[in-house]
Amino acid sequence: MTNTRIVSQSTVDFASYLADQARLVSLPGFRKDVEIVKKNDLSPVTEIDRNVESFVREMVKKTYPTHGFLGEEFGSLNLDAEELWVVDPIDGTRSFITGWPIWGTLLAKLNGGNPEIGLIDMPAIRERWLGICGKTCTFEDSSGARHDCRVSTCETLAQARFYTTNILYFDADDRVKIETLLQSAAVPRFGGDCYSYGLLASGHVDLVVEAKLEPYDYFALIPVVESAGGVITDWSGNPLHQASDGRVIAAATPQLHQAALEILQQI
Amino acid sequence: MTNTRIVSQSTVDFASYLADQARLVSLPGFRKDVEIVKKNDLSPVTEIDRNVESFVREMVKKTYPTHGFLGEEFGSLNLDAEELWVVDPIDGTRSFITGWPIWGTLLAKLNGGNPEIGLIDMPAIRERWLGICGKTCTFEDSSGARHDCRVSTCETLAQARFYTTNILYFDADDRVKIETLLQSAAVPRFGGDCYSYGLLASGHVDLVVEAKLEPYDYFALIPVVESAGGVITDWSGNPLHQASDGRVIAAATPQLHQAALEILQQI
Repeated sequence: MTNTRIVSQSTVDFASYLADQARLVSLPGFRKDVEIVKKNDLSPVTEIDRNVESFVREMVKKTYPTHGFLGEEFGSLNLDAEELWVVDPIDGTRSFITGWPIWGTLLAKLNGGNPEIGLIDMPAIRERWLGICGKTCTFEDSSGARHDCRVSTCETLAQARFYTTNILYFDADDRVKIETLLQSAAVPRFGGDCYSYGLLASGHVDLVVEAKLEPYDYFALIPVVESAGGVITDWSGNPLHQASDGRVIAAATPQLHQAALEILQQI
Repeated sequence: MTNTRIVSQSTVDFASYLADQARLVSLPGFRKDVEIVKKNDLSPVTEIDRNVESFVREMVKKTYPTHGFLGEEFGSLNLDAEELWVVDPIDGTRSFITGWPIWGTLLAKLNGGNPEIGLIDMPAIRERWLGICGKTCTFEDSSGARHDCRVSTCETLAQARFYTTNILYFDADDRVKIETLLQSAAVPRFGGDCYSYGLLASGHVDLVVEAKLEPYDYFALIPVVESAGGVITDWSGNPLHQASDGRVIAAATPQLHQAALEILQQI
């Protein structure tokens, strides 16, 4: 799904600017007393989630009036536009509200349905991955230094460092497959949210498998993983798009991707 | 189990110095290619774990030749000494080897079996909790600023932010109890290792329940939690000591502690 269209630098700069500014909205609320509301699906949301999303939405509207917008909290705006911005204001709200610093802001820019810019920003630990399709993936560490990212060369499950979410989050059928993967992997780990995909882009993790993700959860991950040389698809091996079923697999190499898919596709 | 004996400032300074120096041993190995060895219990260990522990052990031996030492990797030295230092060089080795920055170095100083100094150091994110029994608990943030810590005032499970490890890590009987707690808590979360107890001391988390901890895992946590005003015991409500069964509960208030114990003690 690599997109070879040239992404304009001004759009990339705008995405980075959005992430910089979003930090100024989210960070002051971290480890502070913020009101927590339960959404219809019982997942928690805070005023900070909403403030970040409103901020990004307004900035996009002002800067690119013809572009569309899709967010987690307030839904979409002009969703049929060729150019679409997608934001998850706080990926990892449960972390955010328990003082745990691994939560992120996810930004993606799509063109004709294809994600061409993806940004995983980790405000509390000041780390950021920026992926641009057809270019490299860059990791900015907490000192502000930037590094080109490259996935690992891991080709087998027996050598793989594998992240997944808690198995309670999977349906019964999927859980069996995840348990098989957990038993096959060299280093199985739980937890992660968006951060696992950044670690995969940087070569520290080899495989990530999750389910029940939404488009605002996964669009930003695609340019990060692909521009670092990795593979990211649904559990059938197909590219992720707006109507995907929320099952996501990311792997460092096509070989490892294939080995994991064989387990995930067992009936 | 609060110890009212006055802890000498020089011993506290030495503990902080140990943690400063241990960072210089552990951090250069983080996100680098380090050899991973599987221990007899199949848990991973790296040369960094061993280097940190050797370093601390040598420093203690040189500075306090009559004191004893207990570590995760190389066992004990003069374990019957009145004054005992306990170290877990890398708490969260799985995090360490997958580039995940939430891993810590745990240091405890015991006197006559009672932990009087506890230090949770998080090198990769430059945060530290220092608890001194009979005094306050101090949190040092990544900017180097120090803050007095105080647990939350949460008294009920229905309001509690609750951390536990993955339920796969519990025996079947314990798992049922943990699932009940997960269903009762306001915000249930998985993962954590030592960091959860620091967050509890800082008032961001209200309850932590784990099992299968070793003395080098829990001794450092006791002064941190107690000097921040919290309660930490085994699942029977008894103080933790060298021969405890590895089941640990920490709570912000006696009321919350009691409410959780009632579930944990059901047969």
